[in-house]
Amino acid sequence: MRIGIYGYGNLSRGVEYSASQNGDVELVGVFTRRDPSAVRTVLGAPVYSAADVESFREKIDVMIVCGGSATDLPKMTPAVAKYFSVVDSFDTHPKIPEHFAAVDSAAKAAGTLALISAGWDPGMFSLSRLYSTSILPDGENYTFWGRGVSQGHSDAVRRIDGVLDARQYTVPREEALEAVRSGKNPVLTTREKHLRECFVVAEDGADLERIEREIVTMPDYFADYDTTVKFISMEEMKRDHSELPHGGFVIRSGKTGQGGSHSQTIEYRLTLDSNPEFTAGVLVAAARAVYRMKNRGETGCITLFDVAPRDLSPLSPEEQRATML
Amino acid sequence: MRIGIYGYGNLSRGVEYSASQNGDVELVGVFTRRDPSAVRTVLGAPVYSAADVESFREKIDVMIVCGGSATDLPKMTPAVAKYFSVVDSFDTHPKIPEHFAAVDSAAKAAGTLALISAGWDPGMFSLSRLYSTSILPDGENYTFWGRGVSQGHSDAVRRIDGVLDARQYTVPREEALEAVRSGKNPVLTTREKHLRECFVVAEDGADLERIEREIVTMPDYFADYDTTVKFISMEEMKRDHSELPHGGFVIRSGKTGQGGSHSQTIEYRLTLDSNPEFTAGVLVAAARAVYRMKNRGETGCITLFDVAPRDLSPLSPEEQRATML
Repeated sequence: MRIGIYGYGNLSRGVEYSASQNGDVELVGVFTRRDPSAVRTVLGAPVYSAADVESFREKIDVMIVCGGSATDLPKMTPAVAKYFSVVDSFDTHPKIPEHFAAVDSAAKAAGTLALISAGWDPGMFSLSRLYSTSILPDGENYTFWGRGVSQGHSDAVRRIDGVLDARQYTVPREEALEAVRSGKNPVLTTREKHLRECFVVAEDGADLERIEREIVTMPDYFADYDTTVKFISMEEMKRDHSELPHGGFVIRSGKTGQGGSHSQTIEYRLTLDSNPEFTAGVLVAAARAVYRMKNRGETGCITLFDVAPRDLSPLSPEEQRATML
Repeated sequence: MRIGIYGYGNLSRGVEYSASQNGDVELVGVFTRRDPSAVRTVLGAPVYSAADVESFREKIDVMIVCGGSATDLPKMTPAVAKYFSVVDSFDTHPKIPEHFAAVDSAAKAAGTLALISAGWDPGMFSLSRLYSTSILPDGENYTFWGRGVSQGHSDAVRRIDGVLDARQYTVPREEALEAVRSGKNPVLTTREKHLRECFVVAEDGADLERIEREIVTMPDYFADYDTTVKFISMEEMKRDHSELPHGGFVIRSGKTGQGGSHSQTIEYRLTLDSNPEFTAGVLVAAARAVYRMKNRGETGCITLFDVAPRDLSPLSPEEQRATML
């Protein structure tokens, strides 16, 4: 299977590493809208101009489109799907139906297959919600995120006057997790589910009290949470907060049997040192499924919900049954 | 979707309850090899003789075959697949390829579709192993069972002279779970992974020391484990140990990125008040997928690995994407 990477950033570097771990995957090249000579890939994959991508139609089976969900992917995925079967990690949940429709239309017209919203949420967390809800129809789903870096919240803090750098960690509250695991199906407020921890580098002489107040009262981002703010030096920021860990929990608690007297709990938990590298692993496995399903004649837009898990694995169905079932 | 239940025991009762929680499922009846008038179903499903099952060919879409894996299912599933699309929970892992081949042959000849080995292990645990291994190719899988009742081990203790009743709980060791979660990929012995707890009702005047010694030294079942034995009264047995709880953990710990420097951990955990009722939930969702896939023309033997998760859910693909993705 020959893949390409469209766009080059944190996620793309993860795809480059993941491709190197999969013996059946050949990474043909990286396509950038920047000057290709200015992009250095982590494992030496060749870099080409995005303007030349069409000429690789016969050389690449699946293109992994790496870009931001706010402005990049809504345009890039349908555009690239005109020439290639594609995979993306579009993660703006409320806009998934709209993105699905746009990509489906482009892929159907071109006779390509496109899998969108692969990653962990949407992605593996979505699969957990769907499987668990199908098995335990009478129950509640709970999703917790963290402990991990939220880039959007970190950016929001950085925009405050007097802030040089910031990192925001989303932290699930242990009491809330335990209440859910107990099978009590609690109703939890936003504040009860997660804490927000901010690490901030301020300008010399900045008014720290004002910065802290602006953070904890910020609507949408922090006002509905218990938020802690810790001021640190730039050295501490670089030393202790340069990674992008993340993770979380999807828990379904359901009732079965006579009068719903039995509690059944399914918990899916991710603990990730690197959010983009994990997402990249999902993208590469999804690309394998797209390659196989396209070869069977499927076109249009799909998600991981439409993929038989068999198609994600490099093992033969016989090997899968003998070693994993 | 019209389903039937072939065989009637703990698991079948779970299927009867689960069917009642699924609005798109109609339970047509239960088929027994015993005298139908001697079987009372928990929610009043009609009971028929297994000898008459063929006459229900046009009235039932999917038959859920409920029986033991040792002797019942290897015969029953291929036999019933001659007339119906079927689902079973065959769980003797080493014999799955053999069972798959026998059922595949029967189902292909009859033009029916058969899904085997649905449940939690094999079943949801298998799916977790397959997904996780596909996403994190460089890593290790760990499966822990419990805390829960092992029927096979309970039976083994009951066969000891002087034992009136017994219940054996398999318990995962917390230290082992923590070592795996830490990303260290430890090599664990049988003894390091699980404890075995036995609750035993002995005959009046029985030699308790001998019974305990016979338990903890029993080859295959207990000799390789740290086993505790507690003697209790028949009243305590009935009061505290009449349920069939179970569960466990599938954990994959993998490495990604530059030199494999990042640990990524995926944990799937089940905490079940009722083992058979949970398994029944998987069987009913699997029956829905079989019904849909059969209508699309598929025949032969499959497992959950071959099922797109979309097909397990009563929701439309649009609803799934809007609410679960």
